[in-house]
Amino acid sequence: MHRSRIGLVLVDHPASDWEAGLAFWAGVQGVPPTGDDDAFRSLGSIAGVALESQRIGEGTPARVHLDIETDDVPAEVERVVGLGATVMTPHDGWAVLLDPGGLVFCVVPVQTGEEFEKHALVWD
Amino acid sequence: MHRSRIGLVLVDHPASDWEAGLAFWAGVQGVPPTGDDDAFRSLGSIAGVALESQRIGEGTPARVHLDIETDDVPAEVERVVGLGATVMTPHDGWAVLLDPGGLVFCVVPVQTGEEFEKHALVWD
Repeated sequence: MHRSRIGLVLVDHPASDWEAGLAFWAGVQGVPPTGDDDAFRSLGSIAGVALESQRIGEGTPARVHLDIETDDVPAEVERVVGLGATVMTPHDGWAVLLDPGGLVFCVVPVQTGEEFEKHALVWD
Repeated sequence: MHRSRIGLVLVDHPASDWEAGLAFWAGVQGVPPTGDDDAFRSLGSIAGVALESQRIGEGTPARVHLDIETDDVPAEVERVVGLGATVMTPHDGWAVLLDPGGLVFCVVPVQTGEEFEKHALVWD
């Protein structure tokens, strides 16, 4: 008998983008990065997060991406753009964006219902 | 005022690898995939997961990767290899692996303490 679980989500940037990427995701989480390891910083935790499998276009390499869910997509897009993101593809009601290191993520309407109510962060 | 949070982690594979990738991550989670969307399946949720920022080597594009934490690294590596993963780089006490679609992930010792105790899955 042994135990396991998906326990860590790591956002990886090459050294040239690390500072910008770190500051961006710390801003998304609304926490200061902690730790003094040579190559790692902690950005708090994420709770009750849905895991999904997505079929993407042929030729795009396999990847993991994060969705930020929100009760106000335009306001959240504005917030993350203020943190350094750029909008790659705006859609009707959601958007595909790039972080300062070129990493793809999305801003989408609330997907997780009760978990969102329990764990959402509040922005003025 | 609006609210947001990182609410979804999506594992993306091109169509040619989707079935294998989906089956693999469903096995990691120990759940059957659910849903009948054209391009999405649900794989349950992950709870109290640590978010970290990592500095990686110059030339490696920015990415997100998942760590599976476990109280028995060799047993968990054997389990995920049985599900279709391959070991890319074995280290002393942890390993870098590839899922059936070539997606990088790691198997590492327990990192999250209490959250692991609360949320770990048990394998015979």
